Amino acid sequence: MNFASDNTAPAAPEVMAALVAANEGAAMPYGNDPATARVQARLREIFEAPEAAVYLVGTGTAANALSLACLTDPWGAVFCHRNAHIEEDECGAPEFFTGGAKLVLVDGAHGRMTPDALLRAIAFTGRAGVHNVQRGMVSITNSTEAGTVYSLNQLHGLCEVARAHGLPVHLDGARFANALVSCGATPAEMTWKAGVDAVSFGATKNGCAGAEAVILFDPEKAWEFELRRKRAGHLLSKHRYTAAQMEAYLEGDLWLRLARQANAMAARLSAGIAALPGAGLTHPTEANAVFAHFPRAAHRRALASGAEYYFWPFDQSLEGAGDQPLSCRLVCSWSTTEAEVDSFLAALRG
Amino acid sequence: MNFASDNTAPAAPEVMAALVAANEGAAMPYGNDPATARVQARLREIFEAPEAAVYLVGTGTAANALSLACLTDPWGAVFCHRNAHIEEDECGAPEFFTGGAKLVLVDGAHGRMTPDALLRAIAFTGRAGVHNVQRGMVSITNSTEAGTVYSLNQLHGLCEVARAHGLPVHLDGARFANALVSCGATPAEMTWKAGVDAVSFGATKNGCAGAEAVILFDPEKAWEFELRRKRAGHLLSKHRYTAAQMEAYLEGDLWLRLARQANAMAARLSAGIAALPGAGLTHPTEANAVFAHFPRAAHRRALASGAEYYFWPFDQSLEGAGDQPLSCRLVCSWSTTEAEVDSFLAALRG
Amino acid sequence: MNFASDNTAPAAPEVMAALVAANEGAAMPYGNDPATARVQARLREIFEAPEAAVYLVGTGTAANALSLACLTDPWGAVFCHRNAHIEEDECGAPEFFTGGAKLVLVDGAHGRMTPDALLRAIAFTGRAGVHNVQRGMVSITNSTEAGTVYSLNQLHGLCEVARAHGLPVHLDGARFANALVSCGATPAEMTWKAGVDAVSFGATKNGCAGAEAVILFDPEKAWEFELRRKRAGHLLSKHRYTAAQMEAYLEGDLWLRLARQANAMAARLSAGIAALPGAGLTHPTEANAVFAHFPRAAHRRALASGAEYYFWPFDQSLEGAGDQPLSCRLVCSWSTTEAEVDSFLAALRG
Amino acid sequence: MNFASDNTAPAAPEVMAALVAANEGAAMPYGNDPATARVQARLREIFEAPEAAVYLVGTGTAANALSLACLTDPWGAVFCHRNAHIEEDECGAPEFFTGGAKLVLVDGAHGRMTPDALLRAIAFTGRAGVHNVQRGMVSITNSTEAGTVYSLNQLHGLCEVARAHGLPVHLDGARFANALVSCGATPAEMTWKAGVDAVSFGATKNGCAGAEAVILFDPEKAWEFELRRKRAGHLLSKHRYTAAQMEAYLEGDLWLRLARQANAMAARLSAGIAALPGAGLTHPTEANAVFAHFPRAAHRRALASGAEYYFWPFDQSLEGAGDQPLSCRLVCSWSTTEAEVDSFLAALRG
Repeated sequence: MNFASDNTAPAAPEVMAALVAANEGAAMPYGNDPATARVQARLREIFEAPEAAVYLVGTGTAANALSLACLTDPWGAVFCHRNAHIEEDECGAPEFFTGGAKLVLVDGAHGRMTPDALLRAIAFTGRAGVHNVQRGMVSITNSTEAGTVYSLNQLHGLCEVARAHGLPVHLDGARFANALVSCGATPAEMTWKAGVDAVSFGATKNGCAGAEAVILFDPEKAWEFELRRKRAGHLLSKHRYTAAQMEAYLEGDLWLRLARQANAMAARLSAGIAALPGAGLTHPTEANAVFAHFPRAAHRRALASGAEYYFWPFDQSLEGAGDQPLSCRLVCSWSTTEAEVDSFLAALRG
Repeated sequence: MNFASDNTAPAAPEVMAALVAANEGAAMPYGNDPATARVQARLREIFEAPEAAVYLVGTGTAANALSLACLTDPWGAVFCHRNAHIEEDECGAPEFFTGGAKLVLVDGAHGRMTPDALLRAIAFTGRAGVHNVQRGMVSITNSTEAGTVYSLNQLHGLCEVARAHGLPVHLDGARFANALVSCGATPAEMTWKAGVDAVSFGATKNGCAGAEAVILFDPEKAWEFELRRKRAGHLLSKHRYTAAQMEAYLEGDLWLRLARQANAMAARLSAGIAALPGAGLTHPTEANAVFAHFPRAAHRRALASGAEYYFWPFDQSLEGAGDQPLSCRLVCSWSTTEAEVDSFLAALRG
Repeated sequence: MNFASDNTAPAAPEVMAALVAANEGAAMPYGNDPATARVQARLREIFEAPEAAVYLVGTGTAANALSLACLTDPWGAVFCHRNAHIEEDECGAPEFFTGGAKLVLVDGAHGRMTPDALLRAIAFTGRAGVHNVQRGMVSITNSTEAGTVYSLNQLHGLCEVARAHGLPVHLDGARFANALVSCGATPAEMTWKAGVDAVSFGATKNGCAGAEAVILFDPEKAWEFELRRKRAGHLLSKHRYTAAQMEAYLEGDLWLRLARQANAMAARLSAGIAALPGAGLTHPTEANAVFAHFPRAAHRRALASGAEYYFWPFDQSLEGAGDQPLSCRLVCSWSTTEAEVDSFLAALRG
Repeated sequence: MNFASDNTAPAAPEVMAALVAANEGAAMPYGNDPATARVQARLREIFEAPEAAVYLVGTGTAANALSLACLTDPWGAVFCHRNAHIEEDECGAPEFFTGGAKLVLVDGAHGRMTPDALLRAIAFTGRAGVHNVQRGMVSITNSTEAGTVYSLNQLHGLCEVARAHGLPVHLDGARFANALVSCGATPAEMTWKAGVDAVSFGATKNGCAGAEAVILFDPEKAWEFELRRKRAGHLLSKHRYTAAQMEAYLEGDLWLRLARQANAMAARLSAGIAALPGAGLTHPTEANAVFAHFPRAAHRRALASGAEYYFWPFDQSLEGAGDQPLSCRLVCSWSTTEAEVDSFLAALRG
């Protein structure tokens, strides 16, 4: 019953089998192996983007920070949600990789920026000529840090604001698959057809051991990306192993099946919690993470039964009298089972 | 017959088996898994350094650049050999991670800095108060980019110069194991006992899929290293897979056996080439790389037989009349076999 | 009637005379001239800080950004008011000089951070171990961007919060003199006695041509500051001219007299506007800047009479029907005269 | 008898008079004053470059480092002479401003790069695809750090090599006027007509108090330059004072007269030393600096008579027996007089 994060899950068996199969004979390093070329072609197909530049890296922070660095100048503003991963969970990687760009925080309920809030942030920034940082780019997280998913309409709304100001758009898709199966769009619809220029296409959280892709729909920045990746130590030498993971992940729509399972488990968990007396949801459950609150006693029972998860925000305590609700985050993964969810709910119920 | 690089080799079977075994159940991410703790303890034992801070990353460039950033200020000089990997093969990663430190190049035959050349470089740098960059640190590569290995005496000589000027010493051990088995020292003797402060302990080239350790003998910079690693996108989320590789690599001295095999194959190859008419060695063969020159016709035969390797320097050509010798680099790995070496030599002989 | 900014004013005659007097014979460059030594000693006296390190630079942005870079790591958060000059008016200089630190914005009415808001920002930042940026430092602007001045009590309140979290405090004193004469404290009381570690001591806006000092009460970072200053191109070669300005500025309390004149003119202007029908103050007038709003027709008359100043915020327009009030900023300087203020008020009145 | 540096000299009387004259009434800040516009126009005329972007800054390091940052990527190599000011005397400012570019050092006697040495450095750099830093730009210093001056032919030779590789060229003209009057070219011939893209046009060393211009012949990077200048704290608020200096400097060819005086004094000094027994020139004297060696006893007499100058290199000593020659640098400025030179020569002769 580990709901601490989707990165506590193991890799999917198909992915691990591909790793083992890749371990045969010599292969040219640094992405010059045949598996890498196949994966790049496959991602171009999946995204209906035959011209796109496609790269693999080992972490989501690398995928995000390298993408941002290619899309904004050091004196640019990166407009993102107040609770975006790039703002809260990467120890300043965006600032480091971009050479000091400024993240300008945009409000919006349930982890989603609103076009109006984005417009206000853009209007305020760069109004003062050379004195202010300049308008740089927009970064959208989907699914969001609140476990919600942008509808295509919502994505279009944000991208239109960006486009009207000439700003490129990055999509942080650490949980791309979870968002995709939730909103029912195609990869192209959820990205370049909506106005997205670059995607961090996450796979680690959804069944790989460590593999993320970056897709640049406009290949103009491709060589710059390659240099930035190398210079940041993110060009993997034995590249075949990352390629093998990604290839298996995409094969036969494994990635979509894994995401559907994670989302279904979150939905089951969410519904179960919502039905508890004194419990409720902090955010709607639209992908694989549940943000909920329930009485302290229920937390005590859940933790006593061995469940792992985080209070959200962190600074709440099991200690103390009273049975007021405490908030938490519960993340499901491809490996979460109905049995786990049901045991957890049973523990909550006591 | 792939002698292009030791990173064309697959992972050792023991390492791959450990990856598979690690893929079971949930594990806390970001290094909070039990395997990581075991690996850290094991490396402390191997290096006889119970206080050392030990970290894992995915690439050698990350290991090097993060280490340098912890040891020098942005306005510092990093003294290294003219052909060091950090100078020639990392696309400026040291400059990026350090915030703009300057690599000051030190001469020395066969890839080895001499204490005298190091002393001259240090004396010249930082002589001008605030105007010049300051003396920052020394970085030594062992085994070197020329396939040679520093003797303990030579290491002591360089470290004494560094110590006399208050400069910390980094060891780029991308091929640490190859150097170690070549010089017959213990890990402690080749590092902190000689005066080394931080080591990039490479494992990828010698049998892993992608795993490097950084060992900081003085743990004072440990937290800074953790922050820099995260900020650079090099804190792996599903950390267990990197830990599993390193654990298997160290288990039962696998790493030493793999390095001995690579070195032995290089020695066999080197001896075979040296015995050819019109051939010779550019550098002594002391680890797993052979730098040699032999007649153009022999190159034609070798390449026709399917061998892969690089001319060294790159800008030489098979084309043209005459049979003058061309220089090349031939790298052996743990997976190189006697049969491969002998086939290659047979092809050379024609 | 130029109220656009205090940097539209000329240098005070005494300062210009000192420049002329300094232009005699040879003088050692880079701060090794006798005038620099005298100025450093004088500032130590004025601040009752015999151990302080004192440096001169040519711009306020340099003074601020160099100070921040000495007080925070690249992965640190700089807590400052939402409208601080370092956030809004330096084109990302703090991010550039610090190597990518993050400005975390703190709320508070009339340009003043409140201890509670600061506490909340600190509590939120750095709660997540290695994942978040770390708590770095606090930067306070006095007088503020809203023309207000912190009382000593208010300064103490902020510094206590900083101190409780081990965070150093920087004071952006681009208008230090204006704040000082407003709150009636001594320089020591307004800085190190309250808990401030470093001050940007502005002189350009208050009567110099281009001269700012940085005072580091703890000299531990002195050499680092010197290296950062040189590396940023801010070590002036013919340093005597900057020293001469600052020496004249401090001589006989000229700086305090100039600031009193500026503040008095702002008070006169503020009182005059407040008495107008349909007019009011946006912020209390406590130093040399007036933030006010008055009817559009009055703006038309003022601008027609040749007055120069900025709408604040910028995006307001004289055009359009109706006579609703528009907001503006009116800055007085040492050179503003009663006649100018009275002419302006007369124009407003029509 | 101060031959320590040309920046020990005062400002020319005409320059100081202009400063005083500029100190009248209000003037818009940040370069929006009329004097700045006049200076920009005048420099465009002088350089016969009506489209050029022209900016003023306060130091030569700022002029150089900002120019480099506009011309190379962070992963670029800046090819420059081994003893260039940007390499030896700016504490890593180029690395800081460019985001970590690498200075690749080019050899050449008497401070002048040769086209062959430049070609070799370019050929070696960037040969390895993504692994190496890329070829970025060339920076030429004229007059050189050895007091020599490139002929137009020599400049053309270097620029042709740069152009053949698509590399932009920067000219560090900290002593532009001294070089110009020495080689007898026009400003246009010495810059864009030879193939130079950007110039640091120094004025401080030749008679200003602190004023340098940057001229970008291709204005495409103009806005980027403005943002970088602001972000680096080098946009002066009371800009009129820098403009006034530069205007007076250019007025009536003052700058050329000042440089001719400095060069003439260096020639007189050089000839006088060359005629001494046991003395000689280290480099030919072609601008305003003399690099010479003469017996220790002569040094003792010169220093005893009050002369100031630097041993070059620094690590030589008056102490010790024997009368072997010691090397030194003697810099003349616009303010050096025949009487000073002759007194110094008399002291040498004893």
